[in-house]
Amino acid sequence: MKIEGKPYRTIWPSADGLAVEIIDQARLPHEFVVVRLEALAEMAHAIRDMQVRGAPLIGAAAAYGMALAMQERSDDAWLEQASQTLMATRPTAVNLRWGLERILAVLRPLHVQQRTAAAWREAALICDEDVALNRSIGEHGYSLLRALHANKQQPLDILTHCNAGWLAAVDWGTALAPIYHAFDAGIPLHVWVDETRPRNQGASLTAWELAQHGVPHTVIVDNAGGHLMQHGRVDAVIVGADRVTRTGDVCNKIGTYLKALAAHDNQVPFYAAVPSPTIDWSINDGLREIPIEERDGTEVSRMRGRLPDGSIAEVDILPAGCRSANIAFDVTPARLVSGIITEHGVCRPDALHTLFPEHEA
Amino acid sequence: MKIEGKPYRTIWPSADGLAVEIIDQARLPHEFVVVRLEALAEMAHAIRDMQVRGAPLIGAAAAYGMALAMQERSDDAWLEQASQTLMATRPTAVNLRWGLERILAVLRPLHVQQRTAAAWREAALICDEDVALNRSIGEHGYSLLRALHANKQQPLDILTHCNAGWLAAVDWGTALAPIYHAFDAGIPLHVWVDETRPRNQGASLTAWELAQHGVPHTVIVDNAGGHLMQHGRVDAVIVGADRVTRTGDVCNKIGTYLKALAAHDNQVPFYAAVPSPTIDWSINDGLREIPIEERDGTEVSRMRGRLPDGSIAEVDILPAGCRSANIAFDVTPARLVSGIITEHGVCRPDALHTLFPEHEA
Repeated sequence: MKIEGKPYRTIWPSADGLAVEIIDQARLPHEFVVVRLEALAEMAHAIRDMQVRGAPLIGAAAAYGMALAMQERSDDAWLEQASQTLMATRPTAVNLRWGLERILAVLRPLHVQQRTAAAWREAALICDEDVALNRSIGEHGYSLLRALHANKQQPLDILTHCNAGWLAAVDWGTALAPIYHAFDAGIPLHVWVDETRPRNQGASLTAWELAQHGVPHTVIVDNAGGHLMQHGRVDAVIVGADRVTRTGDVCNKIGTYLKALAAHDNQVPFYAAVPSPTIDWSINDGLREIPIEERDGTEVSRMRGRLPDGSIAEVDILPAGCRSANIAFDVTPARLVSGIITEHGVCRPDALHTLFPEHEA
Repeated sequence: MKIEGKPYRTIWPSADGLAVEIIDQARLPHEFVVVRLEALAEMAHAIRDMQVRGAPLIGAAAAYGMALAMQERSDDAWLEQASQTLMATRPTAVNLRWGLERILAVLRPLHVQQRTAAAWREAALICDEDVALNRSIGEHGYSLLRALHANKQQPLDILTHCNAGWLAAVDWGTALAPIYHAFDAGIPLHVWVDETRPRNQGASLTAWELAQHGVPHTVIVDNAGGHLMQHGRVDAVIVGADRVTRTGDVCNKIGTYLKALAAHDNQVPFYAAVPSPTIDWSINDGLREIPIEERDGTEVSRMRGRLPDGSIAEVDILPAGCRSANIAFDVTPARLVSGIITEHGVCRPDALHTLFPEHEA
């Protein structure tokens, strides 16, 4: 998608072919900075500190992390150690594991001298495929929005939580791909953007990328969605996911479950937009089996923003010495999900296997 | 309650008897400042800008506002104009109307020369009664917590939203009164404090006052309560209210409805602690009939806190030019409320009239 009119992806190999470049998402929306990463340790740090984040993007970032690692050394021991280093950066999004397993399957059988070039090729392929998957999710989701609009005959109001836009993927995004498709096709719409505490990915990233594309939107606090749904001001909720079980439980940014409850209570359709690498076919019970990341409490207590003079600062918003907890994700049970939008089409959460028959139990 | 060991109320007449003093709650938790108000306009400003806030407290503040107004002039026209000025400050909490109607009923029949002294007396009476009501709510709520603890035999985890502590009342508070009573009685407990965006009354006020009293607590983002309830980490939710209908619908800080949905979905008891002046016996349908205040979007976009050097600053957290909406309250339907804790006891939300038979339909 475009930034100030210029097309970007969120991650790409540097022009000299020796490094990876990313948009530093921890500094948005106040500063737009491209960062060059030259070593495995730098990529691991970028994932852990959420300079790159979003399930599809961290799958791609992990693959590029392996390419950087292979530039350092490409023996078997380092191959395994590098993948374990990346695997340990974030526990919840399954795309990380998916990306690493895929690139390991390519690299393990190869001769040591072939591994570096193969890793760069495979990482690039993963990125191109991610773009294609998300474009396809956008088209399937667009059909849903077109039908909603045909029924309403008024501008659509769509609520989203966190950032599952193009910044969360390589391009297009998951939850926002249908919105970009519908907007580009001329369907009038407006997005309620959940601020998404902590880390404010809605206020910082979703609002920023929607503005870059010209999509009308309003930021609301995470507390507001229920009231809006009670009063008929939301036509659909679309979120992304960090992991979806074979049974359709949706693990996503903390607070997603609360929005799903409100959607269910007010008969508002609730969709998760999920490329297949986000589906964990090995898990049946999302609430019991998905590891939930707990992050540092300073992400709750400190807030980054612009001072009146335009400079960037962090303020501490809690009483001095106050304890805070920071649980990064929650699980929305399949019973609250109206449908899952994949690259193969839209289905009920309990029918994912019909779109991916190779995973039939 | 105590601040640094010294007993305080949230509002009191100044020692010289000519003004009202308040704790400026907009500056907590970073600064503790007592403000002297000498005129009606100053009190109206303090209520509108939420230097005083919380349903019971703004009822008391409005009464003292009338005392300040009577010091300026006490003729009939000014009496009515002053009450209208105060009435217009905040639309949702019914205590404001209740306090004004009560003091008007006292002042209207009086001779102009008697009104000032009578207004000061009545305002003081309203404050003393508020303290007594909330102490009684604390005792009734304590019985609930004692029973929960007898059943659990482990420290209780109680979740609260916004600030319905002593800072929201004249003393004791509504939702926190049972917690203070239980804590003082030696029941081991821990409070999950919802940050409560926007304005962060949980992070700023509830966390601060619980710390002053020594009650163990952890601040969480508003998104986290659902996950905690799914995992059995919340034994009860207790909130205050800005207005409760005769049918038991609970209007409270935005986001309360989402917590009530999660409590209901996980069989966690959900209580509203409500002194009788917060009950609006004229309303049957909270969702349709209670006016919901919309406040300025800057309360969403700007965040106040401490810079690393200890100075206080406000940062803008949204992309430049971004639109935000700020709906201050929502309504939790009675069907999601386990019980209402009043000064007369605890009842099902549809049985308020049994505790207040004078309001039987």
